[in-house]
Amino acid sequence: MDYEAHFQAALDGLKEKGNYRVFAELQRQKGAYPRATRFTDEGTQEVTVWCSNDYLGMGQHPDVISAIHEELDRSGAGAGGTRNISGTMHVHRQLERELADLHGKEDALLFTSGYVSNWAALSTLASKLPNCVVLSDSLNHASMIEGIRHSRAECLRFKHNDAADLDRLLSGIEPGRPKLVAFESVYSMDGDIAPIKEIIEVAEKHGAMTYIDEVHAVGMYGPRGGGVAEREGLMDRLTVIEGTLAKAYGVVGGYIAASKALCDFVRSFASGFIFTTALPPAIAAGALASVRHLKASPFERKRQQERVAKVRAALRAMGIPQLENPSHIIPVMVGDAKKAKMISDWLMEHHGIYVQPINYPTVPVGTERLRITPSPVHSDDDIDRLVKALSDIWGQCALHRVEAAA
Amino acid sequence: MDYEAHFQAALDGLKEKGNYRVFAELQRQKGAYPRATRFTDEGTQEVTVWCSNDYLGMGQHPDVISAIHEELDRSGAGAGGTRNISGTMHVHRQLERELADLHGKEDALLFTSGYVSNWAALSTLASKLPNCVVLSDSLNHASMIEGIRHSRAECLRFKHNDAADLDRLLSGIEPGRPKLVAFESVYSMDGDIAPIKEIIEVAEKHGAMTYIDEVHAVGMYGPRGGGVAEREGLMDRLTVIEGTLAKAYGVVGGYIAASKALCDFVRSFASGFIFTTALPPAIAAGALASVRHLKASPFERKRQQERVAKVRAALRAMGIPQLENPSHIIPVMVGDAKKAKMISDWLMEHHGIYVQPINYPTVPVGTERLRITPSPVHSDDDIDRLVKALSDIWGQCALHRVEAAA
Repeated sequence: MDYEAHFQAALDGLKEKGNYRVFAELQRQKGAYPRATRFTDEGTQEVTVWCSNDYLGMGQHPDVISAIHEELDRSGAGAGGTRNISGTMHVHRQLERELADLHGKEDALLFTSGYVSNWAALSTLASKLPNCVVLSDSLNHASMIEGIRHSRAECLRFKHNDAADLDRLLSGIEPGRPKLVAFESVYSMDGDIAPIKEIIEVAEKHGAMTYIDEVHAVGMYGPRGGGVAEREGLMDRLTVIEGTLAKAYGVVGGYIAASKALCDFVRSFASGFIFTTALPPAIAAGALASVRHLKASPFERKRQQERVAKVRAALRAMGIPQLENPSHIIPVMVGDAKKAKMISDWLMEHHGIYVQPINYPTVPVGTERLRITPSPVHSDDDIDRLVKALSDIWGQCALHRVEAAA
Repeated sequence: MDYEAHFQAALDGLKEKGNYRVFAELQRQKGAYPRATRFTDEGTQEVTVWCSNDYLGMGQHPDVISAIHEELDRSGAGAGGTRNISGTMHVHRQLERELADLHGKEDALLFTSGYVSNWAALSTLASKLPNCVVLSDSLNHASMIEGIRHSRAECLRFKHNDAADLDRLLSGIEPGRPKLVAFESVYSMDGDIAPIKEIIEVAEKHGAMTYIDEVHAVGMYGPRGGGVAEREGLMDRLTVIEGTLAKAYGVVGGYIAASKALCDFVRSFASGFIFTTALPPAIAAGALASVRHLKASPFERKRQQERVAKVRAALRAMGIPQLENPSHIIPVMVGDAKKAKMISDWLMEHHGIYVQPINYPTVPVGTERLRITPSPVHSDDDIDRLVKALSDIWGQCALHRVEAAA
């Protein structure tokens, strides 16, 4: 077996299909974000980032930055251990209490990332509840799919955002069996939003637990940034709310918020929680400052919504085809992997505009896209330059346009 | 199904067996570590930490702290995205190049934690190499076991640290089949060290890849801190070297170092790498400073070895039973979950000495222990106080003593 040749052949296969990923190497400019410096073999280039999940620019917020500086000078760099063996810091517990309060739950549990929180919590719940069956939205994120798969529990996929299909599937399961309905609020690539209330009602009818992933919603929806479920007054009817500190909160880490017993259960049995070093205290302090700020301040949310509306309207006026949706995510559809990469390269080279092409396996083949995420820190001029550049390349490549709005 | 009652019953079961984990809530004191402030319902207490994996005290090293401050002021808090979608920072690539150099490999790949690096790399290699069989040391860490399990590849466990048993198992596998031998250098709970050369020779004979976990060795062994494999001149014969930035390097994060094609393969196919937000640039900068410092400075390694020898000798003189081993980890054996917790509680309450009891599932039932990790920042006085306190409680509890050394 020639291992190296096998790896190389697999990589060549990706390159042929246009699915080989080239990472843009950046240095974000704190205080000037969305500006960043891009590093290439030829040198550096100043760029404007249009595809970040730092949705509200909190990664450079003064409260967040100074909380990290202060905790670093107080506690040092790493936590030095797993949560059980010397790694539980005072600020971890402060953050967990803050997140529990944000979601109106008894407790919360921190993980090193949102990926790990989904993977560890879902695999633990589904494997440790005897004979559990998981009902999983067909477009759930990779971290949820992998967690459910790892549990080896039976998994039934319901049609995306389809409460009637969920009802049909649940009706076929014997009543006394543990059931877990796993879904997201905002789906990151299409930007559509789940019918949370309908899903809860179906789950309640069948005695199923509900697990919602709000990673693309926390900080941005609801009066205190509690997510779409907060906005819709549904948090208390969900069993588990999962979120991230790495997107709207601008730092890193994931969490679940739920009952005290459920959090304690996952804390006590989840391999991916138990056997890993805790988040650095300074990181937890930064996240805590960010959650607290966005609980009280509607400014960033309002400004983001206004920016999103402005970009959408400008794209519409130019006839650039976008996937309409009720969220903050603007998918500009290209439909071809190589073309999406070519447009992205051209925007970077000619305009210093950075929008990563989104290809398979992140989205299905044929739905390749540019995923644009306006934030409160994008100026009117940034928007003008983006939309003009897109319009230029659309013309040059004879790409499909939609009828311009009035 | 009453979910809450199920969770509660499982937790009650842990409490009955003495395996319920109570986390000590700490605030490390930067500049005064191993000193920390412990938070309880009753108030706070000053304690000395004796069970951290910040083995060399690098979590408070001035180079590490200032690198984090500087990068935070340059780039801000979070990376803002996955490595593919706006999250690759210049400092990530600098750190990857530094780690590749440390281990004499073509490239390296960063993960959010050591747990994720093992889980993602092993599950990807074992599942994507057609018909791969994994040979796994029977005492491998949970993250390796879960990664292998997740791959659904065939897995054969060889007897712990037993190259002859590995040879026997490999001899039974058809020659052309992909084979992956996964093991650790320093095993964290017993502190024993693998016969790396013998394992490599057996693997080479059978055309198997080798994957070594050096998380409890990087920074501490070898002239530049490259681990036990560096000390023994074996790095170039290992296919993959996996390490962490959260223990001796004092920060957080995990990595693999290997050939360019292998790293690119894992980068391109590993779900746990692709679909997660990258480490904050300031964290990567802190880790980079730590790796660079320990590459050049033997001081911390030498001082740690001297401190370990001093604690071992003092325990021996008092007849406190320790598991002898060739590493820096000192397991003081108790052999009972409740007794281990009681001793730990007593040390904390009466002496402000914090040593977490290690119980099942981290170690087998009947081998419960206190795991002591001396570091360069523990003073002679710290050592005296630790050993005297242990001797006191040993006498009070009529615990088994070994014959005192001369």
